Amino acid sequence: MGATKPAPPEQAPLKPLKDVRNAYHAAMTGLGAFPFDSHGAPWKGEYIFVSGDLVLDFLYNFFLEVGARLAKMRVYEMTDNPVAREMIGYLLVRGGVHALAYGKALETLTGVEVWRMLPIPNVPNSMFPEAAKYEKMGIHRTLYRFSPSDFKDIENIWRGTHPDDGQPLQVYEGPPSGGEYHELPDVPEEFAPGLSADDFRKIAKRLEIEL
Amino acid sequence: MGATKPAPPEQAPLKPLKDVRNAYHAAMTGLGAFPFDSHGAPWKGEYIFVSGDLVLDFLYNFFLEVGARLAKMRVYEMTDNPVAREMIGYLLVRGGVHALAYGKALETLTGVEVWRMLPIPNVPNSMFPEAAKYEKMGIHRTLYRFSPSDFKDIENIWRGTHPDDGQPLQVYEGPPSGGEYHELPDVPEEFAPGLSADDFRKIAKRLEIEL
Amino acid sequence: MGATKPAPPEQAPLKPLKDVRNAYHAAMTGLGAFPFDSHGAPWKGEYIFVSGDLVLDFLYNFFLEVGARLAKMRVYEMTDNPVAREMIGYLLVRGGVHALAYGKALETLTGVEVWRMLPIPNVPNSMFPEAAKYEKMGIHRTLYRFSPSDFKDIENIWRGTHPDDGQPLQVYEGPPSGGEYHELPDVPEEFAPGLSADDFRKIAKRLEIEL
Amino acid sequence: MGATKPAPPEQAPLKPLKDVRNAYHAAMTGLGAFPFDSHGAPWKGEYIFVSGDLVLDFLYNFFLEVGARLAKMRVYEMTDNPVAREMIGYLLVRGGVHALAYGKALETLTGVEVWRMLPIPNVPNSMFPEAAKYEKMGIHRTLYRFSPSDFKDIENIWRGTHPDDGQPLQVYEGPPSGGEYHELPDVPEEFAPGLSADDFRKIAKRLEIEL
Amino acid sequence: MGATKPAPPEQAPLKPLKDVRNAYHAAMTGLGAFPFDSHGAPWKGEYIFVSGDLVLDFLYNFFLEVGARLAKMRVYEMTDNPVAREMIGYLLVRGGVHALAYGKALETLTGVEVWRMLPIPNVPNSMFPEAAKYEKMGIHRTLYRFSPSDFKDIENIWRGTHPDDGQPLQVYEGPPSGGEYHELPDVPEEFAPGLSADDFRKIAKRLEIEL
Amino acid sequence: MGATKPAPPEQAPLKPLKDVRNAYHAAMTGLGAFPFDSHGAPWKGEYIFVSGDLVLDFLYNFFLEVGARLAKMRVYEMTDNPVAREMIGYLLVRGGVHALAYGKALETLTGVEVWRMLPIPNVPNSMFPEAAKYEKMGIHRTLYRFSPSDFKDIENIWRGTHPDDGQPLQVYEGPPSGGEYHELPDVPEEFAPGLSADDFRKIAKRLEIEL
Repeated sequence: MGATKPAPPEQAPLKPLKDVRNAYHAAMTGLGAFPFDSHGAPWKGEYIFVSGDLVLDFLYNFFLEVGARLAKMRVYEMTDNPVAREMIGYLLVRGGVHALAYGKALETLTGVEVWRMLPIPNVPNSMFPEAAKYEKMGIHRTLYRFSPSDFKDIENIWRGTHPDDGQPLQVYEGPPSGGEYHELPDVPEEFAPGLSADDFRKIAKRLEIEL
Repeated sequence: MGATKPAPPEQAPLKPLKDVRNAYHAAMTGLGAFPFDSHGAPWKGEYIFVSGDLVLDFLYNFFLEVGARLAKMRVYEMTDNPVAREMIGYLLVRGGVHALAYGKALETLTGVEVWRMLPIPNVPNSMFPEAAKYEKMGIHRTLYRFSPSDFKDIENIWRGTHPDDGQPLQVYEGPPSGGEYHELPDVPEEFAPGLSADDFRKIAKRLEIEL
Repeated sequence: MGATKPAPPEQAPLKPLKDVRNAYHAAMTGLGAFPFDSHGAPWKGEYIFVSGDLVLDFLYNFFLEVGARLAKMRVYEMTDNPVAREMIGYLLVRGGVHALAYGKALETLTGVEVWRMLPIPNVPNSMFPEAAKYEKMGIHRTLYRFSPSDFKDIENIWRGTHPDDGQPLQVYEGPPSGGEYHELPDVPEEFAPGLSADDFRKIAKRLEIEL
Repeated sequence: MGATKPAPPEQAPLKPLKDVRNAYHAAMTGLGAFPFDSHGAPWKGEYIFVSGDLVLDFLYNFFLEVGARLAKMRVYEMTDNPVAREMIGYLLVRGGVHALAYGKALETLTGVEVWRMLPIPNVPNSMFPEAAKYEKMGIHRTLYRFSPSDFKDIENIWRGTHPDDGQPLQVYEGPPSGGEYHELPDVPEEFAPGLSADDFRKIAKRLEIEL
Repeated sequence: MGATKPAPPEQAPLKPLKDVRNAYHAAMTGLGAFPFDSHGAPWKGEYIFVSGDLVLDFLYNFFLEVGARLAKMRVYEMTDNPVAREMIGYLLVRGGVHALAYGKALETLTGVEVWRMLPIPNVPNSMFPEAAKYEKMGIHRTLYRFSPSDFKDIENIWRGTHPDDGQPLQVYEGPPSGGEYHELPDVPEEFAPGLSADDFRKIAKRLEIEL
Repeated sequence: MGATKPAPPEQAPLKPLKDVRNAYHAAMTGLGAFPFDSHGAPWKGEYIFVSGDLVLDFLYNFFLEVGARLAKMRVYEMTDNPVAREMIGYLLVRGGVHALAYGKALETLTGVEVWRMLPIPNVPNSMFPEAAKYEKMGIHRTLYRFSPSDFKDIENIWRGTHPDDGQPLQVYEGPPSGGEYHELPDVPEEFAPGLSADDFRKIAKRLEIEL
């Protein structure tokens, strides 16, 4: 997390994390993350909504996307950390895609143009500089077809133009290109992963691997 | 509530309630009810949704009403108890009013005729005989103005006709007439309220009331 | 809440709320309040106590009032915010009324002068300047009769003198006069209520209201 | 506990426990018991009340004892199982001792004869045949001094006569004699303790014990 | 799931589910399943264990697999439903693979042959007829390599022979062949998916699809 | 605990505790401690693990001890408070005894030298100066026999040498000598115990004790 660096225990290398609101990730993981909220409250299975009624399920997801959007907008306003803002900017754009997609799907099922209620709240994503950047790349108009054998008819729902800029909605074959995959480094002050160079030599010997 | 009757303890007058799914109301109240669900899980303050954004709040309530409708429909199908069915029938009708009202309010705020998605699920309340009875009384088209000094302009939202039968929506001045108010009887097998005739005489004496 | 003021998102107008112990009200409401405690733990239905036995229920409420009093006294000592102290001072006085009333009611039911245990803890409200102010106004001796058609015989319980100052207990017809009612202002940095001047013009048009 | 008996898995020896309300003890323990209530809800640390104020702490415990008494009385009425009734009868008597002791201690601290409110609810323990049996043995008037070096002055509080029968309260040196201690038997259908005769031979060999 | 069949609401088609221990799936889903346990308690994010220390994480998973095994064995014994038993039989075999794999991995990391503690509890899977069937197919000795580009060196860990039968452990390229994929049927008595034939015609028209 | 000192309420003597992460102990106790974690989450009965299978129970406890060790190591690194470090140093040493004891017991039951996996994480306790101090005293090699009539054969398990230093394991008759027992002082700013000198005089009079 950049907040700590390796040091002997008596130098208290984890001290910067003692007074943060959620200290679980420092005490319970190797600076990883649990599916906990900012107060350390865990995700719970009862947050799932799957009623069995298709219109209701889509309505719930439409609501969920716009509700999450409001929380993201507020969290953005709580921080000037550039990494946090970059992430939130991207999520605002992709969450906007999801909201629009559920709105379009609801129109398909019911004939009501639910998506015309967007954006909720009634300010555009472009108000957030990091989101505006991704919108210029067209990412707000793009739905990714992750599985070539499923979602074959997604164009029947994701079609027409984006209500914000009137540009055409588009389906992209395959997943987004994404960023690079980072191997998480050792975090010795967290005793993670807890294996020394000597350990590795012993393990290689057990595995009959030549180093 | 009718399942038990007074008897000395060694006759186990509460035995009919030993194996019910939710036994808290028998053990913890005098056959009253806690704000618990059918499994004994309590209502929690985190169930409140009040985002501060008016459209989002109305959207949530619209969703909530139709989600609750589905659960009511299923609970109706789990029982043939006539009192339970009567209550659910009435609630289906009144819940339908609430859903329509939030849908109308959303139209006012956004211009989108959200209420045209109703009913969700796509079967009419009249499918349930007890609900049909209340619809014949026009209760599905009636919004009650509980407070004469508030909600003055409610007719601006609750207007036009009901989508189910094309009959006019109407605002009723004051609360519904309601049923009679029942004094809950003593439940001696629950030791509720725990006061004997002798207690009452003593209390009256302390209060200097003549019996 | 006075802690934030409107500004464009990139100025992080909600930053003052990032590190408070309970950030839910900033992220999830428009600076309103959930029924959560200072740690964000919600109120739960299982906090209700209604045993069905009248003496036990009153005993619980007597305990609850004095337990809450201790917490209020400690919270008072955690802050020098004058608004917080004013509110706590008033609550100490009114909570004292409630404790005394339950104590008097227990005497009525059982003949035991439970209220003679007060105050618990054994320091007077007058130790808190803001509470002393309200006691001088006689508010610690006043029970309000909110409903003219109920609580007709409340004088039979709320009578005699206050144990602190020997002044007569009194029943006031109607609710306390109270303060002014404040319309909550817009909180644009929370996107609440999320309606612009332009929105209002559109809504008025839909409602056929002339602005 | 008597509800099951050993049998090969395909004879479903635990079937009698499939539909009980709380099946955790069958699935998660070897027919032991978790500190869970009848619905499987666990005990939680937040149930502790220790305010730091002595009068308030005693008041809470006085309330707790009488609240628990009511629940015990109701649970008694839910069952005609003789073992359950025997246990509840004994607990009613001992819980009555605890309530009286807290009431006496409150009198010591405050001068108010709180114990005169007992019994709550206002029916005597002797209404329950199994409790009446233990009262005849004087157990309702006996406080045990478990530690010879502590509680030296307990007679200063536990003195006078019992309000129910006017017989003298007494302090007993040492713990109650109690019943026999039972070694819990193997429960093979629960795979508990999961050690076979062959396992024991191997273990003895490792421990260098001769069988 | 076979327990109900379509019928008009007044015939109470969901009645068979009214008194089951966990009724959430009937009321809240379309006879699907939530990630809830048999008592309706949800899965929680705090059940995750990822300490950052590799040995500790593997030790936890080794423990988890054998702990889950005991619960499965007991649940098997609670039911004679052939579908439940078939599923549990399969899971016992695959869970056994996972336990052995974590044990082997721990040996690699630490040199201690942790897997020699298996089976825990000390009875073989073959005690369960349905599990014995899968063991005869060699499934207890097979690890599947789901991703051709990852887990390349898994043979370094999953090697040698199975402690139960001395037969060689083997890595299978690709996922198991699996069963057929079933489209879940409509469940009209649950109003799932809530779309009528007429709905489908309307939807097709909106999608410009010819039926 | 040293963070506050007595003062009149309007000097806000508890202010130093207003912004700590867990403020429950200040508001709800007299600066005592609840069985809550650093975030105020309570201990819950579902944390108990007692499966009925002896090997599994010991395996769980072995895991628990080493998992707790990692958390302790990290908490040590979060603070430079000498009292906290002293306590953690001691707990690391005693926790190490427990882990080794469960590992030895597992060897007894299964023949697998589970304890050879220690220490987990793979750094010695001596890395922590306060722990090193206690190890020099031999405390890491000592098991206390608290009960002279139980645990008679504990030497059969706790024998051989400590894997860290090759010194002999030893059983000590009786509990450790321990530190002095401190009477907790009054904490007037918490109104604990809430008894004044005048109260004591009154109580003594009620108890017929001469002061």
